[in-house]
Amino acid sequence: MEDITTYLQKNSNQILEELFGLLRIPSISSLSEHKDDMYRAAEYYKNALLKAGLDKAEIFDTPGHPVVYAEKILSSGFPTVLVYAHYDVMPVDPIELWESSPFEPEIREGKIYARGADDDKGQGFMHVKAIEYLINSHQLECNVKFMIEGEEEIGSQHLEDFCRAHKDMLTADIILLSDTTMIAFDTPSITVGLRGLAYLEVEVTGPNRDLHSGLYGGIVQNPIHVLARLLASLHDDNGHITIPGFYDDIREMSEEEREELNRAPFDEEAYKKSLEIERLWGESGFTPVERIGIRPSLDVCGIWGGYTGEGSKTILPSKASAKVSMRLVPNQDPEKIAHLFENYLHKIAPDTVRLKVTALHGGYPYIAPTNIPAYKAARKAYLKTFGKYPIPTRSGGSIPIVNTFDKVLGIKSLLLGFGLESDAIHSPNENFLLKNFFKGIETISEFYLQFSHITKD
Amino acid sequence: MEDITTYLQKNSNQILEELFGLLRIPSISSLSEHKDDMYRAAEYYKNALLKAGLDKAEIFDTPGHPVVYAEKILSSGFPTVLVYAHYDVMPVDPIELWESSPFEPEIREGKIYARGADDDKGQGFMHVKAIEYLINSHQLECNVKFMIEGEEEIGSQHLEDFCRAHKDMLTADIILLSDTTMIAFDTPSITVGLRGLAYLEVEVTGPNRDLHSGLYGGIVQNPIHVLARLLASLHDDNGHITIPGFYDDIREMSEEEREELNRAPFDEEAYKKSLEIERLWGESGFTPVERIGIRPSLDVCGIWGGYTGEGSKTILPSKASAKVSMRLVPNQDPEKIAHLFENYLHKIAPDTVRLKVTALHGGYPYIAPTNIPAYKAARKAYLKTFGKYPIPTRSGGSIPIVNTFDKVLGIKSLLLGFGLESDAIHSPNENFLLKNFFKGIETISEFYLQFSHITKD
Repeated sequence: MEDITTYLQKNSNQILEELFGLLRIPSISSLSEHKDDMYRAAEYYKNALLKAGLDKAEIFDTPGHPVVYAEKILSSGFPTVLVYAHYDVMPVDPIELWESSPFEPEIREGKIYARGADDDKGQGFMHVKAIEYLINSHQLECNVKFMIEGEEEIGSQHLEDFCRAHKDMLTADIILLSDTTMIAFDTPSITVGLRGLAYLEVEVTGPNRDLHSGLYGGIVQNPIHVLARLLASLHDDNGHITIPGFYDDIREMSEEEREELNRAPFDEEAYKKSLEIERLWGESGFTPVERIGIRPSLDVCGIWGGYTGEGSKTILPSKASAKVSMRLVPNQDPEKIAHLFENYLHKIAPDTVRLKVTALHGGYPYIAPTNIPAYKAARKAYLKTFGKYPIPTRSGGSIPIVNTFDKVLGIKSLLLGFGLESDAIHSPNENFLLKNFFKGIETISEFYLQFSHITKD
Repeated sequence: MEDITTYLQKNSNQILEELFGLLRIPSISSLSEHKDDMYRAAEYYKNALLKAGLDKAEIFDTPGHPVVYAEKILSSGFPTVLVYAHYDVMPVDPIELWESSPFEPEIREGKIYARGADDDKGQGFMHVKAIEYLINSHQLECNVKFMIEGEEEIGSQHLEDFCRAHKDMLTADIILLSDTTMIAFDTPSITVGLRGLAYLEVEVTGPNRDLHSGLYGGIVQNPIHVLARLLASLHDDNGHITIPGFYDDIREMSEEEREELNRAPFDEEAYKKSLEIERLWGESGFTPVERIGIRPSLDVCGIWGGYTGEGSKTILPSKASAKVSMRLVPNQDPEKIAHLFENYLHKIAPDTVRLKVTALHGGYPYIAPTNIPAYKAARKAYLKTFGKYPIPTRSGGSIPIVNTFDKVLGIKSLLLGFGLESDAIHSPNENFLLKNFFKGIETISEFYLQFSHITKD
């Protein structure tokens, strides 16, 4: 029997070609013009799962983008793993900053460059290939299910209903997903905490049309000024979020927990250098690691209004808009936070303009247990493939569906991420290190061996 | 000899068809893709001036868009009028708000709809047609010169050099231009004051790429937050501009002057209704008419940064930008104001980001004299055509070149505007009332008759 390292070396070209086929499909879930591409990506995954040796593979329609499901049930005595991944990707703008076309994957300096190279096509495909190896080499002693959705980047809007409708089909002992990062290739880590999310859009309307800034300026309130004031009012000078009640529900961490968290290595100088910034920013009273891991944050993700073209146009615009993302921590409730945000803006907005606040999507924060067999199996797998135990970390990101899995299916999730922060997910030039991709396949494969072993004990 | 009213009635279709030919040329000066259209518009004007009976018509190249010049010199004993107009227009976005194509002129409900219908192709063309009538009817007893530029909407960047280079060619007793509004069709007015302008662009750069708002939010300063704070810091709660030194040079008006100014009719309820706003805004301590006429103002004309497309994208953007227009009053200096603005922003911007401020264009405020023969001739002309004397008003708008004419050529300007505030210049659905267009031609024609008469006295 061929070991996995040899297997991957022998088949690396073929494996990458299969991944590239998936990466070439521009499955941007937020843009309606890509509707057909969503089906193409789902179909591609289905065929890849059948080729990997899964017995059943099916595409389920939803009111949004479809869900791919496949399974391999070997024995009722085996533990069952449900793999979750998503085939949808983020938009690619600003397109001019990409060094190669986002949907023409390219390998440069040991990295795969493409939208989705990491998030989450690259990371999701590691699972397909790990299972393919285990099935081909007759080592699989787990039942395996795959559920791959197409709406993760737009809030997994229909997956909760899908889970409710197919609860029996989806029973499992653990949900396995790779949609997070590790600290560094030589410092493997497992994400044990995720922030929640509340995402809203704000629109300020002043006069019913764009006005001449000379003939009207100084007498008609400018909606960009109002929007700027509203957004500037969301943080105080200490980086605290000013929305009344925003912090009320947060479960404060003990000093011990904070100390444990701050053991994660953080090289501030290297971090600033990689982003080309002079100074970090954030909520006073917390370390950078805490600000990302255990404190909520609020970011304006986009703003627009008036004339944004070349040169000058002297107008007082009719409208100004912004998109705002709030990252939440246990026990903040995204719906409650969205309401607090909306109420606060309505309270502070002047009556010279009209204000519209729309909630776009949200998700709960998640804390993963570390005392379960799957987590223990994962530790052993990393020890084998990386030569050291993984560090438990808290990510600033959000995978809202993980909380839904717990609530609806009653199944915990294990977040085995093999991305790096430098992978530029959601940004131009998204990439994924080849060595992480292949090490991910090895580690996932080893996880199944360890998991079936541990659950036998 | 046919009177002008009969002449215009007989030839109205022909005159409008000629104007429409000019309106169909998309001569947007700020967009480099329209470079050829600028030449086409200049050529069109040149031919129209030749057809009107001017003797010499020539296109002068500049480092930017060309200048059209034409003249009709009848006698050294006649007074000389230099007509100024511009053939360039503003961009048309947001294009989706136009009810008809901006460069396909259309008459609806007695109005010409097109970009440039008023500003300034429609108003400029009135002069061509007035002179054509006077020449054809052998009534012209003035020398006439036309100077028509293509860079008014981008700050008349090369006209000052053009004036210096052709000072002898441009000698005149008065400069006549129609690029302003009147109060209403039944309340004619002449603009005797214009605000100056300082127009700048602000760019805030944070990290070197768009970042994931979850993985970086709360630790890296968001450039949109900084921009919002900077812009929010430009006004206090009383609508005063907070830039240190901003108001220092303003010549305060006497109580008598303010009383005189406030005699101009202003129907606040109708004004608010037409703009669909609940409440006016502005600097406390001044009436709406004063805020527009004698006080400076600051408006953000455009803002952009991050993700502005459909749906949600959770990023912390690398950059955020805004365009700012400041309208100035006597004796504010646009260059000094631009420096004060730039210094203030640099002073208050945090070192978590990089700030770039670029001055795009500027112009001095202008006060027109009312005790000169040309102004008196204009009063008589309005009395004849409108049945009442015009009210002297101060406009909030800026025509920076008017100050340059005074400084470089030593010639005062007379601003005979026939537009209305409802013409939506610089906005979607720009329009010009047909009756104002034709009454403008009549009034301009009458001005020449009165002017030659007065100067003979």
